[in-house]
Amino acid sequence: MKEIRIGLVGAGWMGKAHSSAMLDEQMLFGPDFGVPVFEMVADANEESAKIAQHKIGFKRMTTDWHTLVSDPDIDLVDIATPNAFHYEVAKAALENGKNVYCEKPLSISEAESKELAALAAKKNVINYVGFNNTMNPANAYVRDLVQSGKLGKIMRFVGRYDQDQLLDENLPITWRHINKLAGCGALGDLGSHLLSVSQFIMGDISAVNAMKETIFPKRPKGRDSKEMADVENEDIISLMTRYANGAIGTISASRVATGRKNYLAYEIQGTKGSVVYDLETMGEVQVYFQSDDEADRGFRRVFLNPKHKGYSAFQPAGGISIAYNDMKILEAHELFSALTQGTPYACNFEFGYKIDRTIAAILKSADNGVWTPVE
Amino acid sequence: MKEIRIGLVGAGWMGKAHSSAMLDEQMLFGPDFGVPVFEMVADANEESAKIAQHKIGFKRMTTDWHTLVSDPDIDLVDIATPNAFHYEVAKAALENGKNVYCEKPLSISEAESKELAALAAKKNVINYVGFNNTMNPANAYVRDLVQSGKLGKIMRFVGRYDQDQLLDENLPITWRHINKLAGCGALGDLGSHLLSVSQFIMGDISAVNAMKETIFPKRPKGRDSKEMADVENEDIISLMTRYANGAIGTISASRVATGRKNYLAYEIQGTKGSVVYDLETMGEVQVYFQSDDEADRGFRRVFLNPKHKGYSAFQPAGGISIAYNDMKILEAHELFSALTQGTPYACNFEFGYKIDRTIAAILKSADNGVWTPVE
Amino acid sequence: MKEIRIGLVGAGWMGKAHSSAMLDEQMLFGPDFGVPVFEMVADANEESAKIAQHKIGFKRMTTDWHTLVSDPDIDLVDIATPNAFHYEVAKAALENGKNVYCEKPLSISEAESKELAALAAKKNVINYVGFNNTMNPANAYVRDLVQSGKLGKIMRFVGRYDQDQLLDENLPITWRHINKLAGCGALGDLGSHLLSVSQFIMGDISAVNAMKETIFPKRPKGRDSKEMADVENEDIISLMTRYANGAIGTISASRVATGRKNYLAYEIQGTKGSVVYDLETMGEVQVYFQSDDEADRGFRRVFLNPKHKGYSAFQPAGGISIAYNDMKILEAHELFSALTQGTPYACNFEFGYKIDRTIAAILKSADNGVWTPVE
Amino acid sequence: MKEIRIGLVGAGWMGKAHSSAMLDEQMLFGPDFGVPVFEMVADANEESAKIAQHKIGFKRMTTDWHTLVSDPDIDLVDIATPNAFHYEVAKAALENGKNVYCEKPLSISEAESKELAALAAKKNVINYVGFNNTMNPANAYVRDLVQSGKLGKIMRFVGRYDQDQLLDENLPITWRHINKLAGCGALGDLGSHLLSVSQFIMGDISAVNAMKETIFPKRPKGRDSKEMADVENEDIISLMTRYANGAIGTISASRVATGRKNYLAYEIQGTKGSVVYDLETMGEVQVYFQSDDEADRGFRRVFLNPKHKGYSAFQPAGGISIAYNDMKILEAHELFSALTQGTPYACNFEFGYKIDRTIAAILKSADNGVWTPVE
Repeated sequence: MKEIRIGLVGAGWMGKAHSSAMLDEQMLFGPDFGVPVFEMVADANEESAKIAQHKIGFKRMTTDWHTLVSDPDIDLVDIATPNAFHYEVAKAALENGKNVYCEKPLSISEAESKELAALAAKKNVINYVGFNNTMNPANAYVRDLVQSGKLGKIMRFVGRYDQDQLLDENLPITWRHINKLAGCGALGDLGSHLLSVSQFIMGDISAVNAMKETIFPKRPKGRDSKEMADVENEDIISLMTRYANGAIGTISASRVATGRKNYLAYEIQGTKGSVVYDLETMGEVQVYFQSDDEADRGFRRVFLNPKHKGYSAFQPAGGISIAYNDMKILEAHELFSALTQGTPYACNFEFGYKIDRTIAAILKSADNGVWTPVE
Repeated sequence: MKEIRIGLVGAGWMGKAHSSAMLDEQMLFGPDFGVPVFEMVADANEESAKIAQHKIGFKRMTTDWHTLVSDPDIDLVDIATPNAFHYEVAKAALENGKNVYCEKPLSISEAESKELAALAAKKNVINYVGFNNTMNPANAYVRDLVQSGKLGKIMRFVGRYDQDQLLDENLPITWRHINKLAGCGALGDLGSHLLSVSQFIMGDISAVNAMKETIFPKRPKGRDSKEMADVENEDIISLMTRYANGAIGTISASRVATGRKNYLAYEIQGTKGSVVYDLETMGEVQVYFQSDDEADRGFRRVFLNPKHKGYSAFQPAGGISIAYNDMKILEAHELFSALTQGTPYACNFEFGYKIDRTIAAILKSADNGVWTPVE
Repeated sequence: MKEIRIGLVGAGWMGKAHSSAMLDEQMLFGPDFGVPVFEMVADANEESAKIAQHKIGFKRMTTDWHTLVSDPDIDLVDIATPNAFHYEVAKAALENGKNVYCEKPLSISEAESKELAALAAKKNVINYVGFNNTMNPANAYVRDLVQSGKLGKIMRFVGRYDQDQLLDENLPITWRHINKLAGCGALGDLGSHLLSVSQFIMGDISAVNAMKETIFPKRPKGRDSKEMADVENEDIISLMTRYANGAIGTISASRVATGRKNYLAYEIQGTKGSVVYDLETMGEVQVYFQSDDEADRGFRRVFLNPKHKGYSAFQPAGGISIAYNDMKILEAHELFSALTQGTPYACNFEFGYKIDRTIAAILKSADNGVWTPVE
Repeated sequence: MKEIRIGLVGAGWMGKAHSSAMLDEQMLFGPDFGVPVFEMVADANEESAKIAQHKIGFKRMTTDWHTLVSDPDIDLVDIATPNAFHYEVAKAALENGKNVYCEKPLSISEAESKELAALAAKKNVINYVGFNNTMNPANAYVRDLVQSGKLGKIMRFVGRYDQDQLLDENLPITWRHINKLAGCGALGDLGSHLLSVSQFIMGDISAVNAMKETIFPKRPKGRDSKEMADVENEDIISLMTRYANGAIGTISASRVATGRKNYLAYEIQGTKGSVVYDLETMGEVQVYFQSDDEADRGFRRVFLNPKHKGYSAFQPAGGISIAYNDMKILEAHELFSALTQGTPYACNFEFGYKIDRTIAAILKSADNGVWTPVE
């Protein structure tokens, strides 16, 4: 049994989610994969740091993350700051030889992510990015269907991630609308999740042809403000894709998609079968096999069950709901397994860099209106 | 090629539907199964009779159906009158040795239906009741699944037929609410369709235990009337069943089922598989096979296709909508085939009597609150 | 009452479908909108022409369509030939001053369609293209939602038309794969239907950026042949769109879309509401209104009912299935109304030309990989 | 802030689930509602007790629950034993003046539950039964719709809880099949959950008319055994109901329902609206309002969101999956709130007794085949 001493940077909702997932990991998998010790929490806001310390039970707190990343009693730096700070915290942590767990995205630019991926490889530490959707048992199942050849040659990936959280034009401007804080708009916030799923299941995208649209180009500066500020990035992104495996596809994302709440949905068509998935009904995957008798052939509504990787951690029988938090628990488990047992993991900084490289190509294509290679 | 000279009794919506289906049968199947000749239409309302004659192209019309049923130039008496008249028209037609096509129900009482079934058998003519749902390719497919043993031993049938057409308490009283005209309420109007499907797929019900409820016991005497009249029969019927094949089940029907439009829906559970069907999405059947691999197992959403009996008359490929009228066309085709080629058919007067016998047992059970055998 | 003397060119499945729809129109709407008289049928295959004459009841037949289009006793030339012949038959019919009813597409090239549209306008005759999906009560309802402003400013149209009828790589080559017969592939066969719906509801597309893919570039020359022939056109088309109304979108179509049968599906997102529709469940439209209370807000599953244009011709109450044929009946009714009463109609040759113009721009864009204006 | 010293009886899956939920409650709601202290765990199996002590962090363990229930340092006895032991442990705990949290069912007989409810009332301690489905935000939302009158007068409740976990006839006999351990079969295991939901939303059932069926009357004595043992209780239960509020209904449950995994599904029809819910798609409720315009009226697919009680503990925006565990967390929160702040709660021992009283009436009715009053 090995203790994993956690240093959490960022005491907001996501920091709590990470810590909660680590505790649940412990309850579900036991101490064999490491025991989390909540060593220190850092947040620039002292009040927030103290509340987190109190609620989660961190031994120490600080308002200066530099203290944390260089502390000798920290094994794992857990980064749950706003996106724009991921780069500098991760860089400092790596330079101190720490293992790093960084919430997605890795950074807000291709260049920063490239630097971090290279540095992590050089330092030879565990470097993990929290693209939680890759932990979803549904996506793991689909990946198996695709990579085993059960669906034949893959022809097409059609995916969308739509939400309507920013539909109300009276919602004030936030960091999400400012590029130096967010990098980009719907593409980075939502599209990146879909890209991570696409990458996980389909492998590399080789070229993209994209367009973007800002539906609400100005938003109020504050709740009751009549002054308006510029929205700097896209509400909607759309693109056509070519994959290294020969497939083609379309991907889009909107943060103003009226009626859609958490519609990370995709369809994969192969010559022998197809799958359809929608995160709004997280616990089921539609699967079609061309080899079924024609009279009885149709998309099968498969509820997640213990045959699908990760599910049995939560329930002994199929068809019982699992949730967002459960993906984070599986993420914590994969991270802990890597830390204590050296097991491999997909979502390393190289993976995060690949997503950010793809995002850069998409933005470039959207500016130029032409096909743009990734890399 | 043989002409089938039609005598239609009842010139309303259903009479038009029958005639239209016969014409379409002709277009789809051609003259080999008989050519309908619209010989005579009868309706007590002269205006209605004349309009039907004109629109459908009947050679002759009459306001007295006795004339029609005894006319030597009629081969087939087609009964589309209000339900309460089915008995006397069918009886007279049979006594004149005519082939008879009677819209469902066969009559409004067990006794009348018994008499008609016996008379039809004695006269040895074609005697057909229009339980159109048995013509639905979906139900034919399910019947095959059940009777072939593909679903294993059948354990349970759970069915409902819900509509909300009579939900509005201000809708005036109609013949449907008066027992001497309708026989009973939701059970006869809606439940009988479900019983026909159940009978067709599962075979005989051996015993029932039923309850009934009238939600709106009084309705206005007319559109603008403030006078109220008694509703004599049930808005909702519910029952538990035992089948001759050993299965059990529940059946219910409501004509005040808020939100339900044409919800003739059922689920059949066998030891090796299950099916779920809902007439509101007429073109698809959900099928589950226990023998599928557990990882990939789920209800298959099977769209009707040319492998299912009757479908290929309408479309060359699967997944294209068919409709209510198409069931009536298949009904006309089965009737014409019986008339010209002697092919067998399920929905004869004996079948209609069986449904009415079951209805009688259900009503008796609902009055007494105990298990009641059918027959 | 006015007779409409029909001259049908092409005695195959579609010719029968047109004739059947005209007969049903008569049953449903009566003679006030004109009475079809089946005057003459033309088919190069004498056997086919004779069978159609016999089954449908045409007075005369010919193997030379030139005879038909110049016959003085023909009021309406009904073109149901293979696509490649639409142009010359329609042109000759127009030159003879005939009213013309042409199955979609209008022709197989932008240039031909342009010429036909101009000629039809000059001749001032009824000129109708059978884009039946515009007759679907569901699409009429969605059009009302969009054009009334109930959905607010329209942001996005996402549409797909997927089928898997050509998935089997052993299916031999047909006219659909040869450009001089088909014009193009999935775009012309399937995509054109979706474009007609998009045009009908959203108005003009102003620019496109497309890609195309041929999954099976060679197919056997015949059923048992080992010789292979080149497939000349696309199995899959994908495009991004900009609409004249300011919206953006994506459209795609595949004829090798494993598991999809008749998936003409689209989503329209406006600032006040959204709709989702899928032709595989033809009788229901999903509608979302942002103005509903948040606690009770969600996509409404609206079954077609008498409030939706066209539906009440078929059923007196909502939720009962209508079908492909019913769209053709409504098409016949709109055509007859135009012929006898001068009522306006949307799907004229100008409409057909607009679709073909859009197709031309899409193909050009797919060749060049850049945004291409329509017109 | 107040410590809640937990004594857990039963160290299996459910004991872990309770403890995990308490920890998560802490992370989500913070110490204001009490801080759980894991004081002691009891399990007859020493090994199990030790593992639980280690993993969950209990200070002490014992193999004799009598020690635990009388320990002065225990505030709350948490009962997660097999069902048959609930009664004696709960009784002893109450007699020692402890607050008691008992997993459902309260006991396995009406008489035992009656005694426990009376004793709990007399002792004036917190007495909580873990009917977790009442904590589901979906059911809380439906309860509001029903009790606020938004759905009008309630006419009907149609519910089913189907699973197929015991479908395989080769699965050996377990405690679930033996009445002295389980009380009854599918009714107690599954039906009781549905009864708790029905009770929570609809209030009291006044009378029932039930039937039961055992599909597999014998099962192997063990995994590899050829000896067979008698299954003493029902695989399927079905009943008709009358509610104190005037509504009627049907309820059924099966543990051999091929294809159904966690199908706790119900429909409630009121004169002004209806709801449909299915636990397999836990995060959405279908709601229908008769007051919507007819053209736009349909069941609304409402995703759970922060407007629904309990949801906002987990997610800041709607449409994100919550799960089984989350209901247990809300249960822990209601329990802790009751313990530390005296807030009211529905699922007390009286509630548990009411469910067991209803079960007793159902079993009696099934034996006699007649309507049986509840109480």
